[in-house]
Amino acid sequence: MNSRPIGIFDSGLGGLTVLKVLAKNFPNESFVYLGDIARLPYGNKSPETIRKYGDQILRFLKDQDVKAMVIACNSASTVYLGEKFFEGIPLLNVIEPGARAALEKGTSTIAVLGTSATIRSHAYEQTIKTLSSKTTVVEIACPLFVPLVEEGVVHNEITDLVIKRYLEKVKADKIGTVILGCTHYPVLADDIRKFLGNVNLVESGEVLTRELKSLNIPSGSGTRQIRVCITDVTDHFERLAKELMAPERLGPLEKIVL
Amino acid sequence: MNSRPIGIFDSGLGGLTVLKVLAKNFPNESFVYLGDIARLPYGNKSPETIRKYGDQILRFLKDQDVKAMVIACNSASTVYLGEKFFEGIPLLNVIEPGARAALEKGTSTIAVLGTSATIRSHAYEQTIKTLSSKTTVVEIACPLFVPLVEEGVVHNEITDLVIKRYLEKVKADKIGTVILGCTHYPVLADDIRKFLGNVNLVESGEVLTRELKSLNIPSGSGTRQIRVCITDVTDHFERLAKELMAPERLGPLEKIVL
Repeated sequence: MNSRPIGIFDSGLGGLTVLKVLAKNFPNESFVYLGDIARLPYGNKSPETIRKYGDQILRFLKDQDVKAMVIACNSASTVYLGEKFFEGIPLLNVIEPGARAALEKGTSTIAVLGTSATIRSHAYEQTIKTLSSKTTVVEIACPLFVPLVEEGVVHNEITDLVIKRYLEKVKADKIGTVILGCTHYPVLADDIRKFLGNVNLVESGEVLTRELKSLNIPSGSGTRQIRVCITDVTDHFERLAKELMAPERLGPLEKIVL
Repeated sequence: MNSRPIGIFDSGLGGLTVLKVLAKNFPNESFVYLGDIARLPYGNKSPETIRKYGDQILRFLKDQDVKAMVIACNSASTVYLGEKFFEGIPLLNVIEPGARAALEKGTSTIAVLGTSATIRSHAYEQTIKTLSSKTTVVEIACPLFVPLVEEGVVHNEITDLVIKRYLEKVKADKIGTVILGCTHYPVLADDIRKFLGNVNLVESGEVLTRELKSLNIPSGSGTRQIRVCITDVTDHFERLAKELMAPERLGPLEKIVL
């Protein structure tokens, strides 16, 4: 038994889609989430800047006495690729588990959707190619998806046009597996499925569940706590947090200064 | 004669639409522009956070020995409303001159378009109401406009739908004057005009030109320099900067650390 919490780091609130899945799949675990709202988005920042901010946040999570850390943010994950520990604490990123989960679907081609930073890093492509040199990888930056989700512009005509703009090639080429390489994208999963038809969508929450289980960390006690900390506060984010976590209920967000 | 430069502060590169107009209207003046790309957007940050970042940037501009400072960013302007100097240097914001320019159009109603932070501050509404209590002000947050411009998704079907979403009421109510209360919005001016028809659009660049002239600062010499500094570098921003400044030519962006 080890009732220390699991830490989750994201650039904003999108990672709550991951926290929601982990909270459901690990009902006895406590969680501390840190969303770096004051400095989001990470998707168009340089690797050096992401590293600087990321280290500050991982140190904050370490100070919360976490037993493991999950980088839910894909843009940040690209910078910490291959690093299994941060200052002695087990560290997970979303890229490597996501690549493995996509390969298990067995299709000849995999499409990766992500922010500009994630796609520019080619982190998914390189990881997939290392594991399976025969698989074709198509990478597509979808920078408008995050603002659409943040503004609640989903399940409508605008969303459909933006999805068509980015995914026309995926549909035309009948690509069978698509990695949703950004924490916001699961909110658009139904809209994407509607456009693409029959397709395997790989989402970070389920992928990280399996990965955390494989770490064999001693599990928590029955009375758990879920803390969501952010680096700035506005009504907008209070509302967005509730929407992203629904139907799971969420306590007040904690403002922290890094 | 005073060849010291004029400082311009924006959260990102949108303020280049302002720099472009000022550079054209003041052909003998030098300029130092600072875009806080590493921490954009300001549009969804709290006033406290904006103030903290803003003070750092105004201090940077002061260190460049500017003779006047212009806050091109509307979200930042709302925090510095009514402040005429920063540490002894004349300081201009876009809100008060924009409100006055809109009132001069003489329509009974004025619509203000802006980011969530600008609209939430009610800075334009309060300034207009102080100057003319009889004018009706309609405030509309248009948070998707900035990402559309940043991604070059303009003059197409997606832009048209988003404009319709935000401006349907402005059109239905035949509002005669619209303040483009964000530095990115001039890029969408033609699309907005296409949707609204005959309308007065108030843009920050022209408004600030008049305001700078009224300060009567000694003018610069004939050989001028235009420096564009940013707090982070990526290819994306190099490209966007060129697009926003076109047809004006732009030297390489300078990376600075605050």
